[in-house]
Amino acid sequence: MRLKNIDETELIKLLTSGLKKDKSLIKHIGDDAAVIKFPQGQMLLFTSDMLIEGIHFNLKNTSWQAIGHKALARNISDIAAMGGLAKYATVSLGLPKEYSLKNIQAVYGGIKKTAIKYGVIIAGGDISSSKKLIVNIALIGMAKKKEIIYRNTAKVNDAIFVTGKLGGSIKGKHLNFAPRLKEARYLIKEFRPTAMIDLSDGLAQDLGHVINQSQVGAQLIKETIPLSKEASSFKDALYDGEDFELLFTLSKKRAAKFIRSWQKSFKLRVSQIGFTVEKKEGFYYLDKLGKKYAIKPKSKFRHFK
Amino acid sequence: MRLKNIDETELIKLLTSGLKKDKSLIKHIGDDAAVIKFPQGQMLLFTSDMLIEGIHFNLKNTSWQAIGHKALARNISDIAAMGGLAKYATVSLGLPKEYSLKNIQAVYGGIKKTAIKYGVIIAGGDISSSKKLIVNIALIGMAKKKEIIYRNTAKVNDAIFVTGKLGGSIKGKHLNFAPRLKEARYLIKEFRPTAMIDLSDGLAQDLGHVINQSQVGAQLIKETIPLSKEASSFKDALYDGEDFELLFTLSKKRAAKFIRSWQKSFKLRVSQIGFTVEKKEGFYYLDKLGKKYAIKPKSKFRHFK
Repeated sequence: MRLKNIDETELIKLLTSGLKKDKSLIKHIGDDAAVIKFPQGQMLLFTSDMLIEGIHFNLKNTSWQAIGHKALARNISDIAAMGGLAKYATVSLGLPKEYSLKNIQAVYGGIKKTAIKYGVIIAGGDISSSKKLIVNIALIGMAKKKEIIYRNTAKVNDAIFVTGKLGGSIKGKHLNFAPRLKEARYLIKEFRPTAMIDLSDGLAQDLGHVINQSQVGAQLIKETIPLSKEASSFKDALYDGEDFELLFTLSKKRAAKFIRSWQKSFKLRVSQIGFTVEKKEGFYYLDKLGKKYAIKPKSKFRHFK
Repeated sequence: MRLKNIDETELIKLLTSGLKKDKSLIKHIGDDAAVIKFPQGQMLLFTSDMLIEGIHFNLKNTSWQAIGHKALARNISDIAAMGGLAKYATVSLGLPKEYSLKNIQAVYGGIKKTAIKYGVIIAGGDISSSKKLIVNIALIGMAKKKEIIYRNTAKVNDAIFVTGKLGGSIKGKHLNFAPRLKEARYLIKEFRPTAMIDLSDGLAQDLGHVINQSQVGAQLIKETIPLSKEASSFKDALYDGEDFELLFTLSKKRAAKFIRSWQKSFKLRVSQIGFTVEKKEGFYYLDKLGKKYAIKPKSKFRHFK
């Protein structure tokens, strides 16, 4: 069945059937806004992200369900990188009339499946017709004040770590990545990173944000940067976007015990890739011979270049 | 200057310059998510809405600033209709590369101006390239639990009211309407409506939501329904969308004193247009001669018909 043959109210009912809620969600879909009882002692984290057909994904090589997953998982990754738990989402859809109900149910199904997996409650949203498929998700997370980790608080001589492997995400991982929510929670509770960010624009760009905002520099060791098998070169690991891994800094003292402890809890690889230095030393990597190369925090993924 | 000649970071800086914040916004644009200290004793209201060029507005007859205004004001209208104050917004933009910086600054300027007017703080957002201009805003509001007004709590024999005049919004009002935030707050504090909704899909459709969810019927008096001068007939007042006026129900006792009190506070017209009846009596209006006509809660604005 094509969307143009369906009543909007009916479509909303079909898409949102079986949504989970909990006691904190006083009212969800069906009124002007969702009503949420926000727990005391928690800070509210708030982010949103838009996915557009032809820009962020291509229908030729993307499953419908993966589009839904990606739209929500990107936001979960942002909340995780702040140290929070992902809690409540609104889903705004722009839908071409000639698309089939079945495919749009698969998109929404991808959102629902990922929501359940990561503890997110879908609290509301809206639907419009459009020329291209658009999925915009806004996500509220929460964290205790002392749990929140910013980008701008790295110190000189911190160790720099990344989870997973980097580069070549466009070949598939950008659609099916797992946001590092439980890993981030573990880091906060056990090791308290000095700064953290998720890798959405590429290592060079995102580490650039951390060190620029923190007023420090960074020395990376080329050999230690974990390349994914989809990365065709070291440059891909530096500049490709959408890895959605965690990048974080630990004080040297904490870094010493860190990797062994991590390995007891997670199979996911974690790598120390360098350390922060004085700002005046700049941002660079060393190759095997100890030769220095400046890193420019530019991304391949800058839409307005 | 065209957007394609601008660096994304620079664009964000240009658009968001001069944004207001307050003490509750611990962190805004510049990290993975905004961090907000949510006050105790308040419920959180959460809504989002997408505007798409060619669907919700047309560049030929719309000022750039009005697009920004409409995107935020629609959300404010939703929060107002729940009885809340509008507080924190994220703004997601899809921008065609060939559009000029000046015009996109005007769109964002419209958002900023309306944000200041209604006490909203812009807490974050994201920017993508796209084929058509897209503005998605997610808005968090707050209200004390006892202030919140739902759609599904109208009682039999309540008086039904609307603010303003209805119909023909497409001729201009849909772009420059004033969300009825202070009017809604006054209603809640002084008269406590039994149910309330904002008129986004048209009187027939939106009153249909209220009475269906409340398990009551409604009798409207045709002569009392306030037609805007842009409405070409009574049907426009019933079925046109995007009036963004308040529709609410008051107990008969409170209704008796209501209009005079309202007129002391507001110049804006308010009209009693009928009253709720037993569900089995249905949904209808009476003409001058007392003849009954059934109302079908269908909107002209159903995107998937």
